[in-house]
Amino acid sequence: MQYTASVNQLTAPLVQELIDNADKLRLDIQTMENGCTIIDAGINVPGGLEAGRIITEICLGGMGTVAITSSAYTENWPLSITVYSSNPVLACLGSQYAGWSLSHEKYFALGSGPARAMATKEKEGDVLPVEELYKELDYRDAAETATLVIENDAIPPVEIVEKIAQACGVAFDKLTIIVTPTSSLAGSVQVVGRVLEVAMHKAHELHFPLENIIDGMGSAPICPPHPDFVQAMGRTNDAILFAGQVHIFVKGSDAEAEKLATALPSSTSKDYGKPFAQVFKDAKYDFFKIDGMLFSPASVIVTAVESGNSFRAGKLDNALLNQSFGA
Amino acid sequence: MQYTASVNQLTAPLVQELIDNADKLRLDIQTMENGCTIIDAGINVPGGLEAGRIITEICLGGMGTVAITSSAYTENWPLSITVYSSNPVLACLGSQYAGWSLSHEKYFALGSGPARAMATKEKEGDVLPVEELYKELDYRDAAETATLVIENDAIPPVEIVEKIAQACGVAFDKLTIIVTPTSSLAGSVQVVGRVLEVAMHKAHELHFPLENIIDGMGSAPICPPHPDFVQAMGRTNDAILFAGQVHIFVKGSDAEAEKLATALPSSTSKDYGKPFAQVFKDAKYDFFKIDGMLFSPASVIVTAVESGNSFRAGKLDNALLNQSFGA
Amino acid sequence: MQYTASVNQLTAPLVQELIDNADKLRLDIQTMENGCTIIDAGINVPGGLEAGRIITEICLGGMGTVAITSSAYTENWPLSITVYSSNPVLACLGSQYAGWSLSHEKYFALGSGPARAMATKEKEGDVLPVEELYKELDYRDAAETATLVIENDAIPPVEIVEKIAQACGVAFDKLTIIVTPTSSLAGSVQVVGRVLEVAMHKAHELHFPLENIIDGMGSAPICPPHPDFVQAMGRTNDAILFAGQVHIFVKGSDAEAEKLATALPSSTSKDYGKPFAQVFKDAKYDFFKIDGMLFSPASVIVTAVESGNSFRAGKLDNALLNQSFGA
Repeated sequence: MQYTASVNQLTAPLVQELIDNADKLRLDIQTMENGCTIIDAGINVPGGLEAGRIITEICLGGMGTVAITSSAYTENWPLSITVYSSNPVLACLGSQYAGWSLSHEKYFALGSGPARAMATKEKEGDVLPVEELYKELDYRDAAETATLVIENDAIPPVEIVEKIAQACGVAFDKLTIIVTPTSSLAGSVQVVGRVLEVAMHKAHELHFPLENIIDGMGSAPICPPHPDFVQAMGRTNDAILFAGQVHIFVKGSDAEAEKLATALPSSTSKDYGKPFAQVFKDAKYDFFKIDGMLFSPASVIVTAVESGNSFRAGKLDNALLNQSFGA
Repeated sequence: MQYTASVNQLTAPLVQELIDNADKLRLDIQTMENGCTIIDAGINVPGGLEAGRIITEICLGGMGTVAITSSAYTENWPLSITVYSSNPVLACLGSQYAGWSLSHEKYFALGSGPARAMATKEKEGDVLPVEELYKELDYRDAAETATLVIENDAIPPVEIVEKIAQACGVAFDKLTIIVTPTSSLAGSVQVVGRVLEVAMHKAHELHFPLENIIDGMGSAPICPPHPDFVQAMGRTNDAILFAGQVHIFVKGSDAEAEKLATALPSSTSKDYGKPFAQVFKDAKYDFFKIDGMLFSPASVIVTAVESGNSFRAGKLDNALLNQSFGA
Repeated sequence: MQYTASVNQLTAPLVQELIDNADKLRLDIQTMENGCTIIDAGINVPGGLEAGRIITEICLGGMGTVAITSSAYTENWPLSITVYSSNPVLACLGSQYAGWSLSHEKYFALGSGPARAMATKEKEGDVLPVEELYKELDYRDAAETATLVIENDAIPPVEIVEKIAQACGVAFDKLTIIVTPTSSLAGSVQVVGRVLEVAMHKAHELHFPLENIIDGMGSAPICPPHPDFVQAMGRTNDAILFAGQVHIFVKGSDAEAEKLATALPSSTSKDYGKPFAQVFKDAKYDFFKIDGMLFSPASVIVTAVESGNSFRAGKLDNALLNQSFGA
């Protein structure tokens, strides 16, 4: 990738925007005893759509543009999100991907965002081993500050905060952790905002050469939050699986582009066809029993820029979306 | 609400943006003899869509995001506006609501925007008594500068300017008044930009507990301006009544959320069914004879975040919209 | 127009944004020996959608708002662009219009963007004679820096750079030239982003009084790039000819507004009906044999603000769009 910018440095102004506008965005800013900044985006405060939008841009390492819009694609659910990035592989996999498993006693959470690109020591249990992924991306960040986004309904214990700071090699007071509960509005936004990232992740799983992906755009309806964790998580996934759309631009042969387009949509998965909460229940709440190929947008266009040909597969399924979103 | 930020302070950079870009936005900036700044957004200058967009964000007290977009919902009228705010009650009722009756001799206008949250003395004749409303919102602003938006086709006389400055407790040179004629493009934008506000206002009229509203988004087509005041005002209303959509997120019971969704749409009003200019004429141009329940979006989704259930009512009416917009 | 702002000064912060974020936007910034800054937006680097969006705002002289969105109007091609400007005549014709013919030996390119408004000497061969056009616009810029956008797949030779600097009356180190190949993503974006400009240009050809145009908005799908120049250029045109929409607000009589609306759509042209690459081939690759009336949006609304009446003509043609875009 030969990429030299710092995703943590690029996100610093966005983090400052959350802090400066905490009252307006209804966030709570806390400073832990060790100096780490915690931004609560939905635990003890309401947070909201705009907070979620900015947090999504933070997840993307400051390399993506995120807008909250009204879309006519999903007639019952106009509230939508669009995401694009001029470097979708680095923004999505190098930063946004929720690949950092963090646990201490009963606390378990997945971390996403730019701090991942500075983490070196944290490996065991990670969904993608950090060393291998970043070797493949040919990228490492070394910034003065680090920011991690955690999807959870509780502030992480100090042990996890210490683990993050150490793995990133930053002092505690240079670390910011943003916490968004899955059942909050900001949580809905920032997870549905992964519509482009799941396409990048599945492309990676399908062994598509990442360096051939040059640009991309995604959109999906923002799901109404649900108080139950499984239902809330199910809806954030279904927003993408049933109504997510991406348009990706790639180098390489038509055959490769067509193969990618054909394999990408969620409907290619054997587990496609019911709301995700049901899929999860049927898998006895064991993620590893769910087909990894399920996690992808409903509808995909892949343009092969070397031929100018576009390949498309999948389609939106408003009936399943309505079943999941509940109206 | 326990809200401490200052809506007048939050809007100050937006006001400065209008002043700095007056030439580009085709606005006229005047300084009255007493020092008050007047921004003419469509009387002696063209103004335009972007001026209207920024003024709408000013009306929302700097707490909302407004975009001008192209929407496929109203096929004949793609030009549309979307509005969302992470604090819709305060942004819309505490600032955007056009609740301040201002009159002097033959000049009559409604004032909206953040200065309302500083006004204390001006009470008589107001649509909502200022003391009661802000007590309910548990909010008062005290800033160094104040900004009021006036919908009128003339600059207000000095007596009205003095009344505003005194009611807000600011020096004349700390007061900015923005004037948008109803028949101007900026006027169309800033009034149609009340699509979320009318939902907040009607929720208030319906005695829905305002503190339970946590977020919301609205959209509507921007009406073509009309040189006749009644027709122009009619169209700005019809944009919302026939084609406005909102999605609101609320706390509380499903019963309350469903009741709100069912009661909110404009079609629940006995006066629904013809362009607003006709309704107004049929009421012999007496606002108080028009059913207050008419002023609301066409289509409404209310999500009860404590259950995850969504309730919807109303629908867009493109035939009535075309009748009003004139093509 | 009585317009005094400087389009080159207004774009300077946008140019700086490209330079400051070159790595993130995947641009290459070069300094020529003579001191001129060259921004490569797709020759030796990928560039991308966001770079194209900023470059489109630069083309518009800093007087327009450009967004990359997902639109349901062209179902197969959601990736779209919207453009509006509160001064569309000056932004589009005075800056964005690709009216500056630049050639040296085998290098030929059209220049667009704010530098045009400073050029005085370069006349011969220009598509619109620069003196006449700016006299009609009653506008001239005199800024310290100048920026020109060139659509080409090669950096211009030093002779062309010198010609531009001299014509603009700026030192070499005050000149920035942005180069976007037609077959690049940034090129697709910045050319499709001319959807409003082609309407202004055709209005001018139709002798509609430009001073009567007060505002406007346009949208179109962003075409997938094609490696072949003729096909790539064909698609950027077809995006507008088959699926571009504009809404223009004008002063003057209904008769004039209706005449403009009726004459504007691309379908009024005798050359309408097949992808532009085919039109170009059938014209034996001679632009001057193609009907000038072809270059305009598919669908047009013109609102006469003095009567409030709107006139519409044309329609989107998804079948022809799919034929051009290739899926």
